[in-house]
Amino acid sequence: MKNFNFKSPTQIVFGKGTISKLVELISQDEKILLTYGGGSIFKNGVYEQVKAALGARKVVEFGGIEVNPTFETLMKAVEVGRHEKVTFLLAVGGGSVLDGTKFIAAAIPFEGDDPWDLLSKNAKVVRAIPLASVMTLPATGSEMNSGAVISRKSTQEKLSFGDWKIAPQFSILDPETTYSLPKIQIRNGIVDSYIHVMEQYLTYPVASPLQDRQAEAILKTLLEEADAILAEPADYDARATYMWSATQALNGNLSCGVVADWATHGIGHEITAFYGLAHAETLAIVYPALIRYKKEQKREKILQYAQRIFGLCELPGHNLVEEAIRATEVFFHRIGMPTRLSDYGIDAQEAAQRIRDRFMARNTKLGEHRDIFPDDVFKILLAAA
Amino acid sequence: MKNFNFKSPTQIVFGKGTISKLVELISQDEKILLTYGGGSIFKNGVYEQVKAALGARKVVEFGGIEVNPTFETLMKAVEVGRHEKVTFLLAVGGGSVLDGTKFIAAAIPFEGDDPWDLLSKNAKVVRAIPLASVMTLPATGSEMNSGAVISRKSTQEKLSFGDWKIAPQFSILDPETTYSLPKIQIRNGIVDSYIHVMEQYLTYPVASPLQDRQAEAILKTLLEEADAILAEPADYDARATYMWSATQALNGNLSCGVVADWATHGIGHEITAFYGLAHAETLAIVYPALIRYKKEQKREKILQYAQRIFGLCELPGHNLVEEAIRATEVFFHRIGMPTRLSDYGIDAQEAAQRIRDRFMARNTKLGEHRDIFPDDVFKILLAAA
Repeated sequence: MKNFNFKSPTQIVFGKGTISKLVELISQDEKILLTYGGGSIFKNGVYEQVKAALGARKVVEFGGIEVNPTFETLMKAVEVGRHEKVTFLLAVGGGSVLDGTKFIAAAIPFEGDDPWDLLSKNAKVVRAIPLASVMTLPATGSEMNSGAVISRKSTQEKLSFGDWKIAPQFSILDPETTYSLPKIQIRNGIVDSYIHVMEQYLTYPVASPLQDRQAEAILKTLLEEADAILAEPADYDARATYMWSATQALNGNLSCGVVADWATHGIGHEITAFYGLAHAETLAIVYPALIRYKKEQKREKILQYAQRIFGLCELPGHNLVEEAIRATEVFFHRIGMPTRLSDYGIDAQEAAQRIRDRFMARNTKLGEHRDIFPDDVFKILLAAA
Repeated sequence: MKNFNFKSPTQIVFGKGTISKLVELISQDEKILLTYGGGSIFKNGVYEQVKAALGARKVVEFGGIEVNPTFETLMKAVEVGRHEKVTFLLAVGGGSVLDGTKFIAAAIPFEGDDPWDLLSKNAKVVRAIPLASVMTLPATGSEMNSGAVISRKSTQEKLSFGDWKIAPQFSILDPETTYSLPKIQIRNGIVDSYIHVMEQYLTYPVASPLQDRQAEAILKTLLEEADAILAEPADYDARATYMWSATQALNGNLSCGVVADWATHGIGHEITAFYGLAHAETLAIVYPALIRYKKEQKREKILQYAQRIFGLCELPGHNLVEEAIRATEVFFHRIGMPTRLSDYGIDAQEAAQRIRDRFMARNTKLGEHRDIFPDDVFKILLAAA
């Protein structure tokens, strides 16, 4: 096991009717910047619940944070937050709204010239405005971690940053808020959570039997519950399991003491940046191609995954590694998730070249061994044509 | 799934050589009360490592906190802490030292008449001195939670209290510090951790498939690794897995959204209070008798446990419930842990009567249904004769 440093300070308030707890969780004298996305919170009743709970507290609103939140939009919120001297940020929505709000929290008191340095130059988060979330779209795990991914329209970049100061003070997770989500977002969230786990699990053995089993617990749960989660929007227990699985998939616990991969995320972010696909859609394209490409290095863990997750066992004439990768694709297809660039009309040759060029310019090396070079990315993307 | 409220704010600094990180973790201007137990930290090199890392910081020492830390001893530390105006508490040792230090942290600034009220009257923790730990004996999970169990010699009581304010700010876990522990303490720690998980797992189904699998991950790991953990003290990876399993067994995560039992702990604390057995020793006595007594109510989860943990399956003429309980006892025996009162020369009739009487006086009801009454406890203890 590797040495590690772990902290997950966010308080989770989970369950039916918990939005009303805002009244206890935010002090009366905070001046709140309430951030949200495209306006679904006005249709599903969440906005009313939030406003009712906030009561007489001073609230400034900032809406319109897009999926894959952009620096351009967020800097407008930073202006509002600075001008209004807000003391607390409340993100109401999904991972994009929350990631954007984490950036706003760090950017408002940022003392350098350009808050984009937080992403492009790894500038230190010296201070951040306290923030919290009402999470309505389980997927990113952002509600219980200290990371955020931000895009920049002008440069077609998508970069991440992290610091414990931008972890939410609390996150409210009411599974009922997911009932009105389009099925495609639930599907995306399931795949996103599944691959978050895989990135931290499917590398190489480092004597971490507990962490392996904890990862497998989430994978197995998502596999077994996916159909129920998708079948009936108002199945409270299925949605609760989905929501908590998404949070647990990326709250830092699974990474403790192990090596992580994250190459699929690195490549996927570029597909989103260039072609606008949803994050999970990019992951489902890249992941099978990537583990096939790296199947020798990942062999031991793929065999463990084959056996423990899919109950596959060595039989004469069977290729267990390929069967496990295939079973993963079959799972994605079963829940309606495409796994090819061509499914979105993207020319693989073009995408592979653009992303290779960008990675060459950045000198990017990916994967748990940092041995996935731009030319490897090119081949992986061609294999995902 | 039940609604829940979860927070686990402690930073974990885990691995080889991490005691030296104290230099970054505690500010230069803190005045520290360093608490410890019977003095093993002077023999295993931990004291030297701690002192070297603390450097020129002002340190007052308080040693002699006993296994099952007593109110009587701890109040002396409270006097020292108040007199010396310490600003930070650092517990160096096992769960007893840390639990005791959590009490000291809440008792120093306690404004009521008697800090024992924190335990006996559920008095609110209004303030607490910040605390942290260097954990050298994995077992209680105290290093990453907000609870503590304190004994009182004069009244032979053992009671618990909890508040997020007494969660350690950080805990340093270096598996190498466990190399010098007597085998019996390792055995106790394994059983303690195992039963911590069982108390949160083996109740009745509440649609919590993820939490079930997360509990099973720890049970399976302890079962599979126990022999390696005990065989060779300097097996770093085995000890690391043991240490992290103990922490994960009781950091609050497994309890999220489920019902918990804790009857075995309630009864076990009384055996310790009256007869001085180690905590884990009492659990191994009470637990098999208790689940046998409650096997009808717990049937569904026992069957799941039988199948997923021991790979047992329904066969004609087999009693799967009894086989699962028996397999649990066999595991305890395999690692040298007795499961009977008579193994310690305790008269079951006497113990059963004393504990029944005390529970009657306190009107105690135990278990996930609060339906284990003093007469049930009497029968359970007779069955553990």
